[in-house]
Amino acid sequence: MPANATLADLGEFGLIGALVERFPQGDHVLIGPGDDAAVVAVPDGRVVVSTDLHVDTRHFRRDWASATDIGHRVAAANLSDLNAMGGRATALTIGLAAPADLPVAWALELADGIVAECALVGASVVGGDLTSADQVMVSVTALGAVAGDPVRRSGARPGDVLAIAGRQGWAAGGLAVLTRGFRSPRKLVEAYQRPEPPYGAGAQAAALGATAMIDVSDGLLADVGHVAAASGVAIDVRTAAFEIAEPLQAVGAALGADPLRFILTGGDDHCLVATFPGGALMPEGWSEIGVVTEGSGVTVDGAAYDGPAGHTHF
Amino acid sequence: MPANATLADLGEFGLIGALVERFPQGDHVLIGPGDDAAVVAVPDGRVVVSTDLHVDTRHFRRDWASATDIGHRVAAANLSDLNAMGGRATALTIGLAAPADLPVAWALELADGIVAECALVGASVVGGDLTSADQVMVSVTALGAVAGDPVRRSGARPGDVLAIAGRQGWAAGGLAVLTRGFRSPRKLVEAYQRPEPPYGAGAQAAALGATAMIDVSDGLLADVGHVAAASGVAIDVRTAAFEIAEPLQAVGAALGADPLRFILTGGDDHCLVATFPGGALMPEGWSEIGVVTEGSGVTVDGAAYDGPAGHTHF
Repeated sequence: MPANATLADLGEFGLIGALVERFPQGDHVLIGPGDDAAVVAVPDGRVVVSTDLHVDTRHFRRDWASATDIGHRVAAANLSDLNAMGGRATALTIGLAAPADLPVAWALELADGIVAECALVGASVVGGDLTSADQVMVSVTALGAVAGDPVRRSGARPGDVLAIAGRQGWAAGGLAVLTRGFRSPRKLVEAYQRPEPPYGAGAQAAALGATAMIDVSDGLLADVGHVAAASGVAIDVRTAAFEIAEPLQAVGAALGADPLRFILTGGDDHCLVATFPGGALMPEGWSEIGVVTEGSGVTVDGAAYDGPAGHTHF
Repeated sequence: MPANATLADLGEFGLIGALVERFPQGDHVLIGPGDDAAVVAVPDGRVVVSTDLHVDTRHFRRDWASATDIGHRVAAANLSDLNAMGGRATALTIGLAAPADLPVAWALELADGIVAECALVGASVVGGDLTSADQVMVSVTALGAVAGDPVRRSGARPGDVLAIAGRQGWAAGGLAVLTRGFRSPRKLVEAYQRPEPPYGAGAQAAALGATAMIDVSDGLLADVGHVAAASGVAIDVRTAAFEIAEPLQAVGAALGADPLRFILTGGDDHCLVATFPGGALMPEGWSEIGVVTEGSGVTVDGAAYDGPAGHTHF
């Protein structure tokens, strides 16, 4: 196959064959790719499932991240959803829609990124679909297991504390840099290109009594708002709790922006926020960033936030 | 909301709320839409899963079928994949990517069609994702259960007979009619707009000893070819076994086409083909259409087929 071959050159079934070869199958996969459906073991009789769509120019840009990075990104977004329930992904299905002139190499590198991200939690790509479309789009569905009770968005109670695990605001800083045509600070750009969700922190929080949990994908304030709404409580975020990392300070100064804005409204790091009973020992890796009270809505240092809380479509 | 409201008018979370209201949840749904992930009971500890993408102008045309019909179509395609393993779907996740000017009514009617098709097998829509895109695309992932051993594509053996359950060729006849700008014979157009997969025939065939099974979605000969390749056998399809229904004869005559071609290469009816041990009693609803022998590839009445065996992308 020539290095610049396109999907049209290889054809649907040629590409499917090349992709499937790249997907190692774990022991929990009873039937993997190649049949009408896959079969996966879920020993405790409950399966956790989440679906995301990722659309070229909306969720990623092919000139801002390599295909491998985009593979990491799209897998991370779904693995993170299961993390946020206190669970762990075991199997993914992938749909790829793409124009016929897409390079085969791009599709294979996308698959490599997905497989590498899945390896971080022990998940296998068990099936998928491939079709032509005007625009590149990737659908990802993650299946998995949760050991105890799933942690929902609706369990926060007045008196709880709000806590965070994982890096937050870095990807938004990287996106701001890329949007302006720059490529540095390199650490922020890389955080956008390849997020590092705190896998494992979800199950840890569940085991230690988290009352509600969500992963930050719309924006910190927007997602905390989803918890507040689902739980019927008010949540106040305390900005003094955030250390503003050096690269975020640098990009804030360079762009004339408040670096706190990346932390409060950014949504591409896939950190977790959770609520814990007040007075509970904070699990390692988690830090307190706010309090839950009676009422509704989200405030920042006791006041309404000035600006959009995160990203919405349409 | 005005009757001609668009997704841009209602917004992402407004539309999600309106969609979720339309999704009744079965008893097997432990956590439904509205959290980071859904949780579904799979009592026997195995989950069957299949994903499909459906792209506007590739898999459907909005001027050839109503949104409700398209909802039926996209759900049927996935429910049929589980049927072809001998299983039954219990839960679907849906992704909808659409331009901001898509009418809200179209999205809601799509959901109604999906829900109505799911009701035929008792499945619930448990989650999904909504995003903007240049083109309407729907991703569907079905989860479900299989009572005994799943029936794969790879189990056909020389001496087996090939059998079919469900209507075949009608949707292709309807598509041929629509492609030429006609709207009749009405029965064929309706078969294209809203397929009627033989739900239940898969589990029945599995219980009665089917050795291999697939649903016809690429084209009868193409999909029988997948069984032959996976099983390492040759399969001969006998055309004398097919009754050519009156509307197919009519459309063949009107278009100057051989109606048998719709049956042999059409792929939108989601009928099932399976192989059974020779001499086995054919289950009700199934009829014999060929034989399995040593060798490789698919023949029609003992000879190579002249023409494409089905549809491929790219």
